[in-house]
Amino acid sequence: MIQFRTPTDVQVDTAKLQALVSALPTNPMGGWFDLPETYDRTELAAIQAAAAKIQQTSEYLVCIGIGGSYLGHRALSEALRPTSGVKLLYAGNSLSPEAYADLFATLGDHDFSINVISKSGTTTEPAVAFRLLKAKLYAKYGDAAKARIYATTDAAHGALHDEAVAEGYQRFVVPDNIGGRYSVLSAVGLLPLAAAGVDIEALLAGAAAERQALISARQAAAPSAPETTSETTSETAPAPQSLADLPVLRYASLRAQLFAQGTDLEVLATFEPHFQQFTEWWKQLFGESEGKQHQGIFPASVVYTTDLHSLGQYLQEGRRNIFETMLEFATPPASELTVPQTNDNLDGLQYLEGKTLTELNQKALEATVTAHRDGGIPVVELIAPDQSTPSLGALIFFFETACALSAQLVGVNPFDQPGVEAYKNNMFHLLGKPGF
Amino acid sequence: MIQFRTPTDVQVDTAKLQALVSALPTNPMGGWFDLPETYDRTELAAIQAAAAKIQQTSEYLVCIGIGGSYLGHRALSEALRPTSGVKLLYAGNSLSPEAYADLFATLGDHDFSINVISKSGTTTEPAVAFRLLKAKLYAKYGDAAKARIYATTDAAHGALHDEAVAEGYQRFVVPDNIGGRYSVLSAVGLLPLAAAGVDIEALLAGAAAERQALISARQAAAPSAPETTSETTSETAPAPQSLADLPVLRYASLRAQLFAQGTDLEVLATFEPHFQQFTEWWKQLFGESEGKQHQGIFPASVVYTTDLHSLGQYLQEGRRNIFETMLEFATPPASELTVPQTNDNLDGLQYLEGKTLTELNQKALEATVTAHRDGGIPVVELIAPDQSTPSLGALIFFFETACALSAQLVGVNPFDQPGVEAYKNNMFHLLGKPGF
Repeated sequence: MIQFRTPTDVQVDTAKLQALVSALPTNPMGGWFDLPETYDRTELAAIQAAAAKIQQTSEYLVCIGIGGSYLGHRALSEALRPTSGVKLLYAGNSLSPEAYADLFATLGDHDFSINVISKSGTTTEPAVAFRLLKAKLYAKYGDAAKARIYATTDAAHGALHDEAVAEGYQRFVVPDNIGGRYSVLSAVGLLPLAAAGVDIEALLAGAAAERQALISARQAAAPSAPETTSETTSETAPAPQSLADLPVLRYASLRAQLFAQGTDLEVLATFEPHFQQFTEWWKQLFGESEGKQHQGIFPASVVYTTDLHSLGQYLQEGRRNIFETMLEFATPPASELTVPQTNDNLDGLQYLEGKTLTELNQKALEATVTAHRDGGIPVVELIAPDQSTPSLGALIFFFETACALSAQLVGVNPFDQPGVEAYKNNMFHLLGKPGF
Repeated sequence: MIQFRTPTDVQVDTAKLQALVSALPTNPMGGWFDLPETYDRTELAAIQAAAAKIQQTSEYLVCIGIGGSYLGHRALSEALRPTSGVKLLYAGNSLSPEAYADLFATLGDHDFSINVISKSGTTTEPAVAFRLLKAKLYAKYGDAAKARIYATTDAAHGALHDEAVAEGYQRFVVPDNIGGRYSVLSAVGLLPLAAAGVDIEALLAGAAAERQALISARQAAAPSAPETTSETTSETAPAPQSLADLPVLRYASLRAQLFAQGTDLEVLATFEPHFQQFTEWWKQLFGESEGKQHQGIFPASVVYTTDLHSLGQYLQEGRRNIFETMLEFATPPASELTVPQTNDNLDGLQYLEGKTLTELNQKALEATVTAHRDGGIPVVELIAPDQSTPSLGALIFFFETACALSAQLVGVNPFDQPGVEAYKNNMFHLLGKPGF
């Protein structure tokens, strides 16, 4: 389970949060909440089978999608660094010709398949990418190309759904009750991750355990109102924690509390460069969920130690409207890499000889937490057990729940994104789309 | 020259800025200002010769450095995408074992050289990296390894200087009057860029032209006080623009003006994914220059169109303490890539068939500027002529000057970074460094 640590006094409105948590599974866009428990075994088996087929026939899987249709699985595949599956490539998340030049250069003449991920099939960037990649796929494989296209889209309607049915692409479902930025543990993220070699059952199990801890705590707080959704795993449920002590509720409460005090910028910090894309997923989750009605904490991110020599100065001594959320691991990956010995000691590094880089990185983290607190920045430490697949599943569910709750504490709808349409409508007009 | 466009009314205090501009070249840390004009031809020739030797003997150049010792040349090499030289790899900008695993996997048994870039030679991350890479280099080349190590460091003192002298590494100078984040157009950036195949003479020429426009405008404003530093190129000077109209002074003034009004977050936006690292360079330049004495605009960045489906929602409808600086190109790189035709029109993209991606990307940019202004965000457009080497040299000099000036308008020293020491001292203490 994800741990939470801060010296700041956190006020948790347990009654209010209990009600919010209870309402999550029944929210029209709350489908992500029960998913880790109730995932359709048939679809999961189909995902595993498709992933195996992709691994047998392809070196690369080109994932076509933008926003929530790609940030989550890219974040997890880069953080987990699987080596047993295909390499994932990404298209349709920009309109840059250079991005396509790089993609085609990497693809070369290698065998590849396509997973096009779009609820509607008409979003400009992925739709353009799909046309470009389809052309390349058909040129290489002829009519057999159809068998190399996997469409993750609406269950019954939309341009991509209709094309997939007409052409006979294998289809996977973007559930109606799960928004893009909450969809990584649905087929949206699970198919690419399984193809890349990630153990998606372990990923879901980690998320389910995090969910169970929340449900158990809520039940303990309200024994009179047993929660049916928990019965499925009640035997495996850990000893209930009090709601007020539950890390996810403390984090959600602290965010709303700091925002009310004028702290309107949150910096997510990681000391693991391979978690940089994870911070991108996190920025979309929180920015798109909270940034509306002129409200919301602005989500920024840093990758340390490199950014300690960049934004570090600002974090240490700049404006004090910031709080920092440090993403930590109780047991970071062990490293064999140690600081080598030298005959001389010209660089003054002798005191580090024989120490592992993991140890150095950990000390840098502790040093930074202390320095930034001394500088007047509230620092929250979120600590996952390790960088294993279940731990990252837990981390995903932790942030999704914290985001849904803290947005509601701030008073905005965590599940809509009305502002995303503004530039699209202007662009359609400028490009002369019929009807605009 | 870089152009500036905004509907916002900008107040330019020409007298004050004229004084600040005049003082820049004589500032103890203002060496970067005249550098594009006065660059030592002998060192430039040595850089070119070293670059040629690296290209003849190596497939990769591993650049060891952190902060200002690597952000600038990485930004430019990724933006310019040179293909005629060696590939650049980076080390010493983190303590992550995974980062080293990736580096060593890429290096494999390929021929490589090392450019270690450090003023002192005792900064932990690069010093550790240098020990690790030296071990690999000596294991591969024996004593001949010495000839593959290039040290960019202090001219006369420090651990790296002394080791370079003792071991006979070829040395290049980090000037005393140029801080790390302003050093990309010194040997710090020029050697890696030349090795990668960038035309560093053209890069400096672009910066020199941007500088000359500023000097000419200042002289025109003060004919009684001719500026000697301009005589070197007075014949090539363009027709002087009035100081109040000069883009760099308008940008610097607007930043200070918006900050005074409570706009404390600037988002640099690019529509070119290969400029993502350029935004990282920009964040260090402004964040480290302004983020002190509890002052300074917090620098964030977005890469569109992907982030229009992420932070785009926040930019459109979140808190209104933000302004956005749009990095544009009057003539973006032409692209052959067009939207392919299909028999059906299931995706509704027929209206885009035959259009180039460059055109689509440009329309997306125009649509975003309009949408964000409609949303109440001050949007500044900074427009470079194109993505050529001289244009990027001009862009570098434009931002360095704008940063130095707007920081002083806000009332902080643009050239120090006292806060960077805080975590270092804590880390030295935790790691048991003698004397801490």
